[in-house]
Amino acid sequence: MRAHPAGPRHADVITSAGVSSAPPSAQAINALDPMVWPLNAVRGADGELGIGGVDCRAAVREHGSPLFILDEQDVRTRARRFHAAYAQAGASRVYYAAKAFISTAVARWVTQEHLGIDVASGGELAVALRAGVPGERILMHGNNKSMAEIEAAIHAGVSRIVLDSFDDIVRVADAAGRAGVVQPVLVRVTVGVEAHTHEFIATAHEDQKFGLSAASGAADEAVRRIVKLPSLDLVGLHSHIGSQIFDAAGFQVAAARVVELARRLFAEQSVQVAELNLGGGMGIAYTDADDPLDVAEMAGRIGEIVRKECAGAGIPMPALAFEPGRAIIGPAGVTVYEVGTVKPVVLDHGQVRTYVSVDGGMSDNIRTALYDATYTVVLASRVSDAEPILVRVVGKHCESGDVVVRDAWLPGDVVPGDLIAVAATGAYCRAMASNYNLLPRPAVVAVRDGVTSVVLRAETLDDLLALDPG
Amino acid sequence: MRAHPAGPRHADVITSAGVSSAPPSAQAINALDPMVWPLNAVRGADGELGIGGVDCRAAVREHGSPLFILDEQDVRTRARRFHAAYAQAGASRVYYAAKAFISTAVARWVTQEHLGIDVASGGELAVALRAGVPGERILMHGNNKSMAEIEAAIHAGVSRIVLDSFDDIVRVADAAGRAGVVQPVLVRVTVGVEAHTHEFIATAHEDQKFGLSAASGAADEAVRRIVKLPSLDLVGLHSHIGSQIFDAAGFQVAAARVVELARRLFAEQSVQVAELNLGGGMGIAYTDADDPLDVAEMAGRIGEIVRKECAGAGIPMPALAFEPGRAIIGPAGVTVYEVGTVKPVVLDHGQVRTYVSVDGGMSDNIRTALYDATYTVVLASRVSDAEPILVRVVGKHCESGDVVVRDAWLPGDVVPGDLIAVAATGAYCRAMASNYNLLPRPAVVAVRDGVTSVVLRAETLDDLLALDPG
Repeated sequence: MRAHPAGPRHADVITSAGVSSAPPSAQAINALDPMVWPLNAVRGADGELGIGGVDCRAAVREHGSPLFILDEQDVRTRARRFHAAYAQAGASRVYYAAKAFISTAVARWVTQEHLGIDVASGGELAVALRAGVPGERILMHGNNKSMAEIEAAIHAGVSRIVLDSFDDIVRVADAAGRAGVVQPVLVRVTVGVEAHTHEFIATAHEDQKFGLSAASGAADEAVRRIVKLPSLDLVGLHSHIGSQIFDAAGFQVAAARVVELARRLFAEQSVQVAELNLGGGMGIAYTDADDPLDVAEMAGRIGEIVRKECAGAGIPMPALAFEPGRAIIGPAGVTVYEVGTVKPVVLDHGQVRTYVSVDGGMSDNIRTALYDATYTVVLASRVSDAEPILVRVVGKHCESGDVVVRDAWLPGDVVPGDLIAVAATGAYCRAMASNYNLLPRPAVVAVRDGVTSVVLRAETLDDLLALDPG
Repeated sequence: MRAHPAGPRHADVITSAGVSSAPPSAQAINALDPMVWPLNAVRGADGELGIGGVDCRAAVREHGSPLFILDEQDVRTRARRFHAAYAQAGASRVYYAAKAFISTAVARWVTQEHLGIDVASGGELAVALRAGVPGERILMHGNNKSMAEIEAAIHAGVSRIVLDSFDDIVRVADAAGRAGVVQPVLVRVTVGVEAHTHEFIATAHEDQKFGLSAASGAADEAVRRIVKLPSLDLVGLHSHIGSQIFDAAGFQVAAARVVELARRLFAEQSVQVAELNLGGGMGIAYTDADDPLDVAEMAGRIGEIVRKECAGAGIPMPALAFEPGRAIIGPAGVTVYEVGTVKPVVLDHGQVRTYVSVDGGMSDNIRTALYDATYTVVLASRVSDAEPILVRVVGKHCESGDVVVRDAWLPGDVVPGDLIAVAATGAYCRAMASNYNLLPRPAVVAVRDGVTSVVLRAETLDDLLALDPG
């Protein structure tokens, strides 16, 4: 339990959250760490942040502030890299996670780069279809798909529906039967492993809403029911062990357990698992403290783990599938804000924390408040050799928990009117954005070779008022 | 730091979060605790939940599920009660918190019931004005008001602007000067007190983005600057110590400190504080474990505290103002969901937790994931005498932290198709709602004397797609 319903408010130890006690150099805080910033992020002639050949100041002048900027080439490069590395490791498909961020433009980019798309709602499906993504590239997830969503997915000919519960089995079978099709499906299996960053926890059971337990026999029972239903074609199993995962260790236990289930299904039910979707949740670097494993190395290790487990269990190696989650779009996106106020606050121990207020906040990035997420921020409209000061970047919402970056260093001459940029906001920021305090949501633009295009236009006050009969 | 970026996932101790170890009776879990449910919530002839004379099943048939239902008479009654109680205690104005939830209908109700409205953005101001709220009833807050927002507020003739920083002073003075008006203002003062529920913490300084410190001299300096600016009229001070406050203890220290500042301002600058806005954050009951002080009693105690402090300091008692926050709209709102899947999960210690998935989730109520908020839930489409089972009500989002009610008891025969209702969702639910997973946001309807009216219509997929150029 967190005690304060309006979010944390007290002083953290000032050196917490990855902030070193010795201030970094003025030069260091102007630098753009390539692990954190998009592929095509550079300092321009005036010291301004440029992405994909576009000056962030010009982009903000044209599309407003705050502004989400997506480096299109970065998205495409990561998509290609994941596709190639996981194909090499035995994957028949790598899926882009619509929930991280979806729009028709992004759906087209990742489809052109050979990825599939995993969708978890009728809305995400609709965007993929509107972008022209063929059904055979789409996988549908969800612990509580509505009948309308299932029907839409089947009508679109999605290549996989992941069955999450006994209720789900009945509904998908029914909808497929009525549509006169045989729907390929996977069973979502929980294996009692939760992985995150460099750690994982393995338990016998899993206390979560997703999936059917391998340990309790629920997954076996699901398979027993599915194979009796002529409108369903059981292709394989799905397992997902966490998010923001930096190494392959957690996949070891998970693979062992899911392969043991596959062995049992073959031995007891003569069911062959042709495809094993191991989910994903591959991590990205939000700050220089994050060190996710190289894509190809992660792919290779996981592939090897599964191969060994299958050999040990005496079953054929299934085709693999993966869902790297935020890893495609997350690092490609940046949020640019305009600084509105700069306020030094003396703390109880005498140190000063400077609150830098921007024109957005928890409405466009809830992750800091929701997950205690950490981010990297730089002065974006210029560079400065002023002494670094410890800042907290906060939003303009009427709530003290409205924090964008909890601890960061910015040049001491940061002033209202400056633009600052927060890195790695491509995933789960615009996707989870709200209109809290009736702030319209910012535009998302793509930049590439000096050209800016609108991915999602900025909301207007009229958009917000349109729901109110007046 | 919370370790899991996708929210808590492990089993809590099953008796945590207010759930008693002994299951409640079947009768108890059908009951509607009047402390938690809207004033006009009753069980109807079929056992269904009715609010304001409207059957929740009929409302959902007409307006879809999930659905926010507001008991209009409840909102009006609480508004009247706060107005009367705080007027009695010396308040010249009680402000409704737009950030909790605002629409033109709600703005009209609370204005008719003699409240003012506090707004924190141009959007909130626009809705109030669209509803016909006169400027003299409006107060504007904000740690980072844009010049456009300040100009709009001054143009609307808002009766108070709360100045939050030195930057803010300059901007408001400039805008008022250009508009040729003298703008009444308050100074937001931080006094180093943070109150929440039955506890408060007092420190010398305050580590937050809001306000100007009384201890550091920043507040004194702000007053020194303001009184020199002919376009500003310093009416008084503003202090806000927290949210979800259940008793008056925290106001004691805060009042002492802010009254000491008022005394000093008079002694040193001959500035008289005519108005003292003590903010609010009055708490509400989310579950039967919550026991907020009666409105009149809280008002009386705070009034008495300030009177004593002023007498002690030898300064005249200022007019008071309050911002009770969620306390007007919070308890008047209910969310109705349809159950989609019911899944018993065996936990490691052998107990069973039943996951009840609904057709909304963290997109329409982020408070459970964001603040570990607790809620009360009942079966709404019927009553049942089935044995209670321990449930976790979860949403349909593709994220394991997507929890609506962490621990609750529901009848053991709860099935897909049942409606369930979550109480006290009037504040900070629809206001903070997102389109995560591209779920359209639910409608908000008002019910009164058997009549349902649309407060905010449900979003459609077309609304969402309208931002995407395609």
